[in-house]
Amino acid sequence: MNKIRVAVLGFGNVGRCAVDAVLAEPDMELVGIVEVPEVVAKLNPDNRAHQIPRNKPLVSDIGELMPVDVAVLSCQSRAVKATAKSMLERGIRTVDSFDVHQEIPALRRELDAIAKKHNTVSILSAGWDPGIDSVIRGWFQAMAPRGITYTNYGPGLSMGHSVAVRAIPGVKDAISITVPAGMGVHRRMVYVQLKDGASFETVEQLIKKDPYFVKDRTYVFQVEDVSSLMDTGHGVLLERNGVSGITHNQSMKFQLKVNNPALTSQVMVSAARATMKQKPGCYTMIELPVVDFLYGDVDSFVTRFV
Amino acid sequence: MNKIRVAVLGFGNVGRCAVDAVLAEPDMELVGIVEVPEVVAKLNPDNRAHQIPRNKPLVSDIGELMPVDVAVLSCQSRAVKATAKSMLERGIRTVDSFDVHQEIPALRRELDAIAKKHNTVSILSAGWDPGIDSVIRGWFQAMAPRGITYTNYGPGLSMGHSVAVRAIPGVKDAISITVPAGMGVHRRMVYVQLKDGASFETVEQLIKKDPYFVKDRTYVFQVEDVSSLMDTGHGVLLERNGVSGITHNQSMKFQLKVNNPALTSQVMVSAARATMKQKPGCYTMIELPVVDFLYGDVDSFVTRFV
Repeated sequence: MNKIRVAVLGFGNVGRCAVDAVLAEPDMELVGIVEVPEVVAKLNPDNRAHQIPRNKPLVSDIGELMPVDVAVLSCQSRAVKATAKSMLERGIRTVDSFDVHQEIPALRRELDAIAKKHNTVSILSAGWDPGIDSVIRGWFQAMAPRGITYTNYGPGLSMGHSVAVRAIPGVKDAISITVPAGMGVHRRMVYVQLKDGASFETVEQLIKKDPYFVKDRTYVFQVEDVSSLMDTGHGVLLERNGVSGITHNQSMKFQLKVNNPALTSQVMVSAARATMKQKPGCYTMIELPVVDFLYGDVDSFVTRFV
Repeated sequence: MNKIRVAVLGFGNVGRCAVDAVLAEPDMELVGIVEVPEVVAKLNPDNRAHQIPRNKPLVSDIGELMPVDVAVLSCQSRAVKATAKSMLERGIRTVDSFDVHQEIPALRRELDAIAKKHNTVSILSAGWDPGIDSVIRGWFQAMAPRGITYTNYGPGLSMGHSVAVRAIPGVKDAISITVPAGMGVHRRMVYVQLKDGASFETVEQLIKKDPYFVKDRTYVFQVEDVSSLMDTGHGVLLERNGVSGITHNQSMKFQLKVNNPALTSQVMVSAARATMKQKPGCYTMIELPVVDFLYGDVDSFVTRFV
């Protein structure tokens, strides 16, 4: 069997988990990790979670790892567009977990044109939301075409909200936890570590007035050490009550309680397999069959899952 | 827009709901219902759930409804094979909710050859289990490739178990309710109405020794009137704890609480739409993208769901 040659781009929380996931897949070969030297220099050699696997190259240019079948883009959403374009132009398939929901349709069209031009494949927004949850929202719709689907996130760390708090004057470090309050409404639990001389009351007011928080019930707590509160657990509950035909009160739920970077990276790695089975173009997960994401042949899945 | 011309074959619990579902879909036209005259003669004209829609033909041969794009096979599983073959040979796409799990792989291969020969499409086992649950089991696997998925059915009526009890000497009528006991184990609640002179103790022992019941904890109750207990509510809880990469304890759940024939028929009707978008052949739901089941264009779904 020719193994799928996978490179992991980025060695942050998600990239480290992506490396583990690729190594665990029987049909994949980790050809190496691509990361900028400045990030690598900061890795703590005593932290086992930060270690580069033995005998696997760490490079700053993917060109050193060629041929590469798929690049797993374990970078921030803001870097996905440029990185994906650059890979696709070299004929390398890409998967990412781009999560700026409202920008997905335009980015999909843009990457689709580039992928087709270079005869390659991109799977966009292959995480758990967008990604798995998008697919579930689709199946909920297929089961009950009329009704409301609520997406309840958390409890878990919101990266976007945490970054917003850290930008507020007087804040040394902060995290924001998203807590589901039901029916798609959320509250925010914000833990802040202040700079010397900063006023908690002032910081609290600035947070509550910030566009990221102004619409949600927000609680702010002052702590001595934010880093000791860090936990990558997260979750989601999708709920729909809807109508099948003329029959109301069809009730459906989907729930995850997970390590966030581990799930995000595993979905991307499963999607890396799916890139091998598509015609050139860019796809979101709702456009792809689940069987393409799984190791093994279709017949065995029909036997095991159906 | 050319509407998809759909015929419903069978006018039992599922067929009646399928008629409602087709009528509710904006891109479908119900061209008629196919049912044998003996069944139609038994319909109670005062029962609103039994009524044939006005202006819709009820025929005993689908030939009278041609052209038909898709036939929704609302028949018992045992009749699916012959009916699907006959439709496919006429070039009519089919969807069914065939639920004999272990026979699906062989039937898929058989219908695949016939569909390809006649340049048409069949979607096999498009209900909620097999069907939706199969797809969810697949996504669970994609999220956590190692682990155990438990399928917990019910509480709800099991057709197969009910039929098995009715075949026992001394039983006039019966239903069997499947109750989840956790971790994929079930118990059975059986309600029997006896024939005159039959011994409850004897019937109870025969039920508990029946192959359908011998492995499960089974409770048998004697009642005066089984028909007054009939309710088509059902449910399922899929649970998986598994490993993403090297991260254990990734927890995922999927739950339905539904009117069974309404959901089964709605999934078939959504699948009828998906038959229009496939290359010739026979497919199970794990082989198809969710977006093909939905009314509207891909771009709108990327915007709404992803």
